[in-house]
Amino acid sequence: MPAPQEFIKYIDDKADAFIQRLSDAVAIPSVSSDASRRQDVIKMANWLSEQLQAVGVTTQLTDLGKQQIEGQELPLPPVILGKIGNDKNKKTILVYGHFDVQPAFKSDGWDTDPFTLVNDKATGRLIGRGASDDKGPVLGWVNVLQWHHENKKELPVNLRCCFEGMEESGSEGLDDLVARESKPGGWFDGVDAVCISDNYWLNTRTPALTYGLRGLSYYRVTVSGPARDLHSGVFGRTVYEPMTDLIYIMSKLVDNRGHILIPGVEDQVGIADEEEKKIYQALDYSIQDVEESAGAPIALSSDKVEVLMGRMRNPSLSLHGIEGAFSGVGAKTVIPAKVSGKFSIRLVPPQTPESVDPFVISYIEELFKGLNSKSKLEVESLHGGKPWVADHNHWNYEAAKRATWSTYNRLPDLTREGGSIPVTLTFADCLGVNVVLLPMGRGDDGAHSTNEKIDRFNFIEGTKLLGSYLYEVAV
Amino acid sequence: MPAPQEFIKYIDDKADAFIQRLSDAVAIPSVSSDASRRQDVIKMANWLSEQLQAVGVTTQLTDLGKQQIEGQELPLPPVILGKIGNDKNKKTILVYGHFDVQPAFKSDGWDTDPFTLVNDKATGRLIGRGASDDKGPVLGWVNVLQWHHENKKELPVNLRCCFEGMEESGSEGLDDLVARESKPGGWFDGVDAVCISDNYWLNTRTPALTYGLRGLSYYRVTVSGPARDLHSGVFGRTVYEPMTDLIYIMSKLVDNRGHILIPGVEDQVGIADEEEKKIYQALDYSIQDVEESAGAPIALSSDKVEVLMGRMRNPSLSLHGIEGAFSGVGAKTVIPAKVSGKFSIRLVPPQTPESVDPFVISYIEELFKGLNSKSKLEVESLHGGKPWVADHNHWNYEAAKRATWSTYNRLPDLTREGGSIPVTLTFADCLGVNVVLLPMGRGDDGAHSTNEKIDRFNFIEGTKLLGSYLYEVAV
Ligand SMILES: [Zn+2]
Ligand SMILES: [Zn+2]
Ligand SMILES: [Zn+2]
Ligand SMILES: [Zn+2]
Repeated sequence: MPAPQEFIKYIDDKADAFIQRLSDAVAIPSVSSDASRRQDVIKMANWLSEQLQAVGVTTQLTDLGKQQIEGQELPLPPVILGKIGNDKNKKTILVYGHFDVQPAFKSDGWDTDPFTLVNDKATGRLIGRGASDDKGPVLGWVNVLQWHHENKKELPVNLRCCFEGMEESGSEGLDDLVARESKPGGWFDGVDAVCISDNYWLNTRTPALTYGLRGLSYYRVTVSGPARDLHSGVFGRTVYEPMTDLIYIMSKLVDNRGHILIPGVEDQVGIADEEEKKIYQALDYSIQDVEESAGAPIALSSDKVEVLMGRMRNPSLSLHGIEGAFSGVGAKTVIPAKVSGKFSIRLVPPQTPESVDPFVISYIEELFKGLNSKSKLEVESLHGGKPWVADHNHWNYEAAKRATWSTYNRLPDLTREGGSIPVTLTFADCLGVNVVLLPMGRGDDGAHSTNEKIDRFNFIEGTKLLGSYLYEVAV
Repeated sequence: MPAPQEFIKYIDDKADAFIQRLSDAVAIPSVSSDASRRQDVIKMANWLSEQLQAVGVTTQLTDLGKQQIEGQELPLPPVILGKIGNDKNKKTILVYGHFDVQPAFKSDGWDTDPFTLVNDKATGRLIGRGASDDKGPVLGWVNVLQWHHENKKELPVNLRCCFEGMEESGSEGLDDLVARESKPGGWFDGVDAVCISDNYWLNTRTPALTYGLRGLSYYRVTVSGPARDLHSGVFGRTVYEPMTDLIYIMSKLVDNRGHILIPGVEDQVGIADEEEKKIYQALDYSIQDVEESAGAPIALSSDKVEVLMGRMRNPSLSLHGIEGAFSGVGAKTVIPAKVSGKFSIRLVPPQTPESVDPFVISYIEELFKGLNSKSKLEVESLHGGKPWVADHNHWNYEAAKRATWSTYNRLPDLTREGGSIPVTLTFADCLGVNVVLLPMGRGDDGAHSTNEKIDRFNFIEGTKLLGSYLYEVAV
């Protein structure tokens, strides 16, 4: 069912108050990766918990223990668990967000102080660290609940919240908590579907639902020879040089059109049929959009479907760099003794790090054997995460589509993201239910970048979207 | 003619005084690359000039002007020009050395204070920064002259000296001075041959004469694409990645046996005939020596002649590293926007940077063209220096061979070095005369390294060698 008209009107009427609350949130520099800011992350947890309680949410601050960071022991910020309703006749929806942010310094190139929200009336932008990632969306949920609480309206669903303070630092401690609370009697027991608002539209125009994320498998290939770095004058052409072997191996992993040259890896993924291609054709995203965001005319193809499938539904391999070689400016004539090439593969279903690793490792070992080198080789899989794809015809998605239609008067782009949001997989795996990614912000919000913003339009209409979603999913 | 017996005996008798003088020299930390040590380099110049005057040399401290270093203007240390004799019936010999040293801190891993000469009686080593590079050899000449001065013996040759204080920092200002003083009426006018004692035996056993040095041509290949670094999740397989193209290019430059794959480059160099190979076969240097100094069993061949020719008479290409790519520890999922591969080619006659550059640049441009990439390529030759080979049958070398025989009772190894000593070329070019490199120290002296030493044996016998050379070359 659609959200009540009074709700929609209330959100418009209260817009300035909502922006003030966002401003209060941005003012707390809850940078999770900075040890000196840890107390601010904890302060942010307490502030948010109070906001939730003020709109009728039962909250629990869950301690996650300690963390070792930069040589000191620090308390992890608590996770906020929230609850409204326990009606057996209603669906139970879990919403996730995070209240920690990326680091930001004025000196990084911000035009204004990152932790003072600037309400730029000329552009309609609300500028500040966390405005879009992810304080805006989290406060969107609070905005929705405020109308219900002030007007004593029952929610159409049972609501569960999970708001964490370590998302930008690997969500330390969250997996265990989700697994624990997903069990019978746990905080998430009985959850029917999950909604996460922590990503972005493809562009600046069209709302989106995201139903897939790529996984990752990160590799380090180390070739070592001499006991120490050597002088190329004295040793050039007398010994096997590790760089020569490493560069050879790295040159055999991917071609410059993005085809992965490791046998078996591409074969794991099915070919897109015409039906699937139509999804990409339908997206409001052009080659020009890709090239604008890359800042140069360097798209791999002039075929939009091919480029979008390259990002969303095909695996990719990128060469990141070399550790141990000369990387400074200038001209050093060194033969590096030990060099480690770094590369990673973005995975799509049914690939997993475990299924890809053997192909990668044995291929590189064979390549190296063929070199007949006297250097030594080590291939390591450093870390990885599975890809995720949800059924975008599930009622959870249908609800999000209807909510998008009623809010924006258009259908959302159905997107898959090239990167990963690991917590998505944690919820999908632990709860065994459908997860929808329902973004609030636009593709140019600059999360993790300087001058992060959320448009006032997206913050206010996005609040309506989240509220409408709760009504549409309730049916 | 052989050196007088009284001279030989005098050197043995005065050994402890000579070592004391070396100790005084080492105590002045004349580090030319360290702005805060510049006054010590100048102090060293004055000290050495006084030592030379005390043994009868007419000296002139030549001002080289100023230098910009670390944002400040510093006076360059003066070059010491020295002169004894102007007899038209004698040959005129120019000797070169340097009185500046490499940086050294106890914390680098020295067992003792680098600027306090340690006379280790147990091992016979004189340990301290500059002991072997190049204060020991420079004082060797002073020792020789001391006998002549104290005993009012005329030198068998006219002597010219050139001792500089910026060798470890690119010999700034020296080329111009040598060119100027080589002209008619200049300090070096009339020089018949040059002797430089500033390198090392191949090993710890056999004296050496060095008649060749490799040159160098250093390249930077830059591939650039996006306007900024990109996230591999979002952009992997949607755009041309500069690293993929750069790694491909770098993989096509050299194979892991050291063969240079750039057409034309190897062809410039003639093949060694049996005569030439015999020189390398005769050297007192084994595969084991190469692998011991590299610290691992990684020699390119089990054929000693092949390995030594790889170092001494063939060009080599080494890949040094990449600027702009991820080079830290850990796992960063970046697509670097602009990456610069660094490599260099060691050159041998008749190669010059100018003759090699066109092959290198056009080959890389062709390779890149074949990639049909949308990235941009730039190939730059950063700097270079010509190789040098002298006629080792010249009377200058014959004199050095006889001096070696009379001092050590064996013939020297006839070596070519893989690295470069640019001043050699400066003298050879400006004066148009034969230059001999007549090393005093051993291959394990650790010049530029921690615990630099010269063996007492080499310092004392080396002094006799330098003296004997002046007599043998006089004939
Ligand atoms: Zn986020
Ligand atoms: Zn984020
Ligand atoms: Zn030197
Ligand atoms: Zn040196």
